[in-house]
Amino acid sequence: MQSFELDKTDIQRIRQALDGDEAVLTALLSEYHASEIAIIFESLPQEARDRIIHILPSDIASEVIAEMDYEIHPEKIIENMHPGKRSEIMEELDYDDATDIISQLPEHQQKEILREIDEEDASHIRTLLNYPEDTAGGLMNTQVIKVNGNYTKKDALNEIIRQSEEMEEFYTINVVDDENYLKGIVSLKDIIKAKYSTVINDLVNPEFVYVKAETDQEEVARLISQYNLTSIPVVDDDMRLLGRITFDDVIDVLQEENTEDILKFSGVSEDEELSGNWKEAVKSRLPWLVLNLGTAFLAASVSRHFDSTIKMIPMLVGYMGMIAGMGGNTATQALAVTIRRISLADLTDNQAYRTVLKEFTVGLINGAVNGFIVLLVSMYLDSNPMFSLVIFLSMIGNLVIAGIAGSSIPLILKRVGIDPAIASSIIITTFTDVFGFLLLLGLASKLLL
Amino acid sequence: MQSFELDKTDIQRIRQALDGDEAVLTALLSEYHASEIAIIFESLPQEARDRIIHILPSDIASEVIAEMDYEIHPEKIIENMHPGKRSEIMEELDYDDATDIISQLPEHQQKEILREIDEEDASHIRTLLNYPEDTAGGLMNTQVIKVNGNYTKKDALNEIIRQSEEMEEFYTINVVDDENYLKGIVSLKDIIKAKYSTVINDLVNPEFVYVKAETDQEEVARLISQYNLTSIPVVDDDMRLLGRITFDDVIDVLQEENTEDILKFSGVSEDEELSGNWKEAVKSRLPWLVLNLGTAFLAASVSRHFDSTIKMIPMLVGYMGMIAGMGGNTATQALAVTIRRISLADLTDNQAYRTVLKEFTVGLINGAVNGFIVLLVSMYLDSNPMFSLVIFLSMIGNLVIAGIAGSSIPLILKRVGIDPAIASSIIITTFTDVFGFLLLLGLASKLLL
Repeated sequence: MQSFELDKTDIQRIRQALDGDEAVLTALLSEYHASEIAIIFESLPQEARDRIIHILPSDIASEVIAEMDYEIHPEKIIENMHPGKRSEIMEELDYDDATDIISQLPEHQQKEILREIDEEDASHIRTLLNYPEDTAGGLMNTQVIKVNGNYTKKDALNEIIRQSEEMEEFYTINVVDDENYLKGIVSLKDIIKAKYSTVINDLVNPEFVYVKAETDQEEVARLISQYNLTSIPVVDDDMRLLGRITFDDVIDVLQEENTEDILKFSGVSEDEELSGNWKEAVKSRLPWLVLNLGTAFLAASVSRHFDSTIKMIPMLVGYMGMIAGMGGNTATQALAVTIRRISLADLTDNQAYRTVLKEFTVGLINGAVNGFIVLLVSMYLDSNPMFSLVIFLSMIGNLVIAGIAGSSIPLILKRVGIDPAIASSIIITTFTDVFGFLLLLGLASKLLL
Repeated sequence: MQSFELDKTDIQRIRQALDGDEAVLTALLSEYHASEIAIIFESLPQEARDRIIHILPSDIASEVIAEMDYEIHPEKIIENMHPGKRSEIMEELDYDDATDIISQLPEHQQKEILREIDEEDASHIRTLLNYPEDTAGGLMNTQVIKVNGNYTKKDALNEIIRQSEEMEEFYTINVVDDENYLKGIVSLKDIIKAKYSTVINDLVNPEFVYVKAETDQEEVARLISQYNLTSIPVVDDDMRLLGRITFDDVIDVLQEENTEDILKFSGVSEDEELSGNWKEAVKSRLPWLVLNLGTAFLAASVSRHFDSTIKMIPMLVGYMGMIAGMGGNTATQALAVTIRRISLADLTDNQAYRTVLKEFTVGLINGAVNGFIVLLVSMYLDSNPMFSLVIFLSMIGNLVIAGIAGSSIPLILKRVGIDPAIASSIIITTFTDVFGFLLLLGLASKLLL
């Protein structure tokens, strides 16, 4: 199963099998890993998904549902399912996955489903439903491997083997006291290497990283990534063990954040679903466009202010868009580098100062090079050296300002505690439009009229 | 050690201690985890980094070096170090980290360092230096836990404990035959649960995911994320075990890709270092700006072509930038959503068609709403209903085209095998500039003159 990549053939084979004999379909499905079926689901209609889940054995079906992208709505499959099969699958799901899925359904359906399933499972899920989705509590699984620190190696190993029957994977063992207070963590390797009479408390590393249930998911991702952890325990305010978050949840969080970053940067609301319909897309993007329209009126009013200059030197018009646009692009470049840099770490005052200074320098040089090219073209086309000089100076001026704005605005926003990604390229581009027009038309009025 | 976040106080304390007594500095440093010192290093000059590494015990020092961001050049510390201390630290480093670091040094220094250290370590590193950095071979660690499939549980456990002495962490056990051909993987949990006389081959899962040394690092990240793996074995073309890649390497790859995506999207070369100097920044960004300038001349030539129209209706000028800019933003929004969507999965023909159709619809509606706002403002300002109608139609037309271009261009690029991120917002924005000018000035010429 090396570097297995799904392609259209796989989807076509399954599509064809859907129209045929159930035994053939069952055999075909058994060739795929649950996470592969989850990907194939993206290309199939809802009825086909429902039917395939119905055919699959419950353990595979629950894995497929857990691996499905939330954008293709795994909860719809649960909603459409026969209650008998549904409770079977819900009980197979990890508590965190089960919670994520049913949290998408209306409350009366949540209650109905929780009544159908085993009372212990239901109570775990009810607890998890109380935590906001983007916190450690919302991300964690309440199924953990834990042993009492007073156990000997022998008792602990038996306990671990017993507890691990119900878990697919575990990475570290949580050590608790009689009242479930977390005392530390220990690896299976360390337990195995110890003597049989060793007490677990003696193996525990008292310095360990943990999070509280209300910790933001980005902070969880940062800690798991910084300390290279396979899993991190989640505790309540009194250090009682609540659950664990594993590295694979964090990989999902990172991919989510990546999408959000690039969307916010482009003036798209961060919760627009990539495969959502046009209504959602309009709702998510229209506010940014209207905001931009407002600022565009500002730029237009600058050009109106210089109406008489434009009438006397109409060849200015061709250069207005060019200088404004080049400024916008320079600002976007500076913005992307700066936003990405401060998303990874805070900058000291000195680093912030040097960042802006660097972007000033870059704007100056890129402005000079591009300004010189435009100068040459303009000398050839317009045969008016003074006019060409105005174009040259405006290009340099706007690119310098663009570099300063593109780097300093996100830095300032971060300092005052506002998400710097809000300085999306849309906002900053309008800024360079207004300034570019002012510079070009202002210089032209002073020097050419 | 909960949710520990470094702030300026930490950096100031260390800065002050650097000027004082070495014993105080040593005590202060011992309060921090290696990965925290690596972050503090970003705010310290090279001499301070060299001095701290010199003071730290070799095992901590090597961890700090391994955790340092490549942008602050861990290889400089290695370069400046006294050979005795250096070989100690090089031998403490995991082979993959050691390789990454010395690969940044000139060849004669690489050879010198490899001569200083233990021959076995050096030969591992020499092998790894041969693989390109962004492949599985470049990412892998050659230190793996492996047992012969013919071993009994008892022998295997002893072997695992022996091998794990030299490794900080391991997650799965590779099962090989007498000639080092990989036969499968097994978890420590499954070995422990087995009877003492069980032969390892009977525990092995014959279906497992692996990669070849030449597999691209993005593909490795995709597999680890898709199958929720803690580690993935790397093999040669004949299935001989070469090494393993762990989830934490993949988290680093994902963060790197995040940065590259947002940079490419903004017209910044993907290998510009975020904290690099202005020379690198100019080199990475100037080509994009010059390219943009070329296309901007195209837009300017459109407006030159309509010189007489502009002279007769100068109030058009104020709306030119507005309509072009709104088109650029609409295209950027469509582009961001589409690029992000196809970065996660390929789209079928039908999905691609529906994506473009959706963006067409979104452009139409957003164009109508914004067009209507501009229509009202223009009726009030310009008192010329026919003129206002031209503005309205141009806004709708440009936003529809922007939606279609922003979604279809990346889809087409992906189909023909070109990185869709190359359709950066810079390129697509110029497209909407040209089209917006053509539409506005063309309609004005036809309907108003």
